[in-house]
Amino acid sequence: MEKILIHEVGLRDGLQMEKDVVHTERKLAWAEGLLGSGVDVVQVGSFVHPGKVPQMADTDDLFRRLAASGRKPEAVSLSGLVLNEKGLERGLACGVELLCMGVSASETHSRKNTGMSVAEATRRIIAMAASAERAGARVQVSVQSAFGCGYEGPVPPERVLAIVQALLDAGLRSLSLADTAGHATPDDVERLYARVLAPAPDVQWACHFHDTYGLALANCYAALRAGVRCFEASVAGLGGCPFTAVAGGNVCTEDFVHYLHRTGRRRDIRLEPLVEVARDVAAFFGREMPGSVYRTGPIPEPAAAPSGR
Amino acid sequence: MEKILIHEVGLRDGLQMEKDVVHTERKLAWAEGLLGSGVDVVQVGSFVHPGKVPQMADTDDLFRRLAASGRKPEAVSLSGLVLNEKGLERGLACGVELLCMGVSASETHSRKNTGMSVAEATRRIIAMAASAERAGARVQVSVQSAFGCGYEGPVPPERVLAIVQALLDAGLRSLSLADTAGHATPDDVERLYARVLAPAPDVQWACHFHDTYGLALANCYAALRAGVRCFEASVAGLGGCPFTAVAGGNVCTEDFVHYLHRTGRRRDIRLEPLVEVARDVAAFFGREMPGSVYRTGPIPEPAAAPSGR
Repeated sequence: MEKILIHEVGLRDGLQMEKDVVHTERKLAWAEGLLGSGVDVVQVGSFVHPGKVPQMADTDDLFRRLAASGRKPEAVSLSGLVLNEKGLERGLACGVELLCMGVSASETHSRKNTGMSVAEATRRIIAMAASAERAGARVQVSVQSAFGCGYEGPVPPERVLAIVQALLDAGLRSLSLADTAGHATPDDVERLYARVLAPAPDVQWACHFHDTYGLALANCYAALRAGVRCFEASVAGLGGCPFTAVAGGNVCTEDFVHYLHRTGRRRDIRLEPLVEVARDVAAFFGREMPGSVYRTGPIPEPAAAPSGR
Repeated sequence: MEKILIHEVGLRDGLQMEKDVVHTERKLAWAEGLLGSGVDVVQVGSFVHPGKVPQMADTDDLFRRLAASGRKPEAVSLSGLVLNEKGLERGLACGVELLCMGVSASETHSRKNTGMSVAEATRRIIAMAASAERAGARVQVSVQSAFGCGYEGPVPPERVLAIVQALLDAGLRSLSLADTAGHATPDDVERLYARVLAPAPDVQWACHFHDTYGLALANCYAALRAGVRCFEASVAGLGGCPFTAVAGGNVCTEDFVHYLHRTGRRRDIRLEPLVEVARDVAAFFGREMPGSVYRTGPIPEPAAAPSGR
């Protein structure tokens, strides 16, 4: 079986939803904990205008300090989200190994986020991805709102497939479907991935599920069944901010890793450093986080031999 | 497609884990809310010694008052859990329509719970079920700890299959597998139900998942895929008591019903009364409950027509 990969995105997708700005030293400590767990990619931040998202103002600094620290294991990549050409320049200047970009399948979401139509945003992202690859970076492009949109509601699969086709035609081979609003059901997930995976077997497909309505782990299971092997997740389920009307963090990294351990799908990611970071995240924000395993601990190994008859 | 059934068990399985005793008037209000939602069965309590589980001391009273109130819709059944012959007598005296009984697949759990071996407990439950059926009640028998045990760890599927065979041989046709400790993964669920469903197509199979490690909804999805049509669930995800070392309520009723709505698998159960009870439960216990939808509300219907191209 192909190896399952974990792309930890809590420091970016989780923290950008929080009201409290986390200081750089603490982010570095969390990043080092995550890097030490053996997850495959750690997303450190987004290259967005600091006036717009103050939580991400230290992204360049974080990349430079992590590179200088010598604490990043060879096998783990750092990723950063870039939203525009300026962000791309900054990301390349920081030597980011994996640059993540996205285009929304929802017209309303696209216009609110970028001021562009889906078609315009798709062309722009394809051009940015080409620049990044020419500069030697790896690129992943996500289709956001792929399973529904908080503004528009249902998003027809055909709209997602058209964007995917444009990305494939442009030669992109690392793609993700993102359930930005958390509207996906596992039934949707199996159906949509079946349609995108079949015609593009050489693509590395990722998934990104928000847990707004409690289905994120079910959606991961459905994605696994459909053949997806790369999972974006947030430590402690970060992003489930209780102060927003519709709270929905990403699927919780350590809960999913615990599941991978239990099923033997992957055992070499260490749970303890993830649980430690999750506990520190909960202590920092002073509230219970969405994750389960950081509270319960993993299922203990049996103390005695299994019972007789 | 065969109709999916919801058996709401929060008033029993949820409340018995709580330290605070809920007064009868409030339980009645919650029961009436649940009955009004259109779920198929509402479990009102267990017939256990009130000295052992003070939270269940008013079970007989609740059944009598619900019967007298005239508020129970014809289509909805009331169920009660019986643990021994004395409880069975009490349940029959209250006219309970569905009597639920269980036997554990774990020797340690069985001995701690009943003082009997699995084999002894199985014989006893078969005898009790026969009495109940002779008295005109419907009976459901659960195999507890079917996916693992908090004391023993893994429970071999063969042990579950042997109990199931004994129950089938005794003529029982309404059975449930219960993940008492929350150890099940969706992979386990698909595998085990495939093995029990195939040889017994005339049995109504139910499932009962605790959300200890975040997988309860994923397990429900797996059970659905495997052909299970009856789901035990707790309003608000009751039972996830934060004061126990390993917290794990049942899968949350309104979250699962929301999923059924979204997928069109079943739409006639009303979400609002479930959400109202869940909010009142959270207010009563003064803490956030595990459920998602009672906090977020359901996904709104799209306000405008889907966007253009």
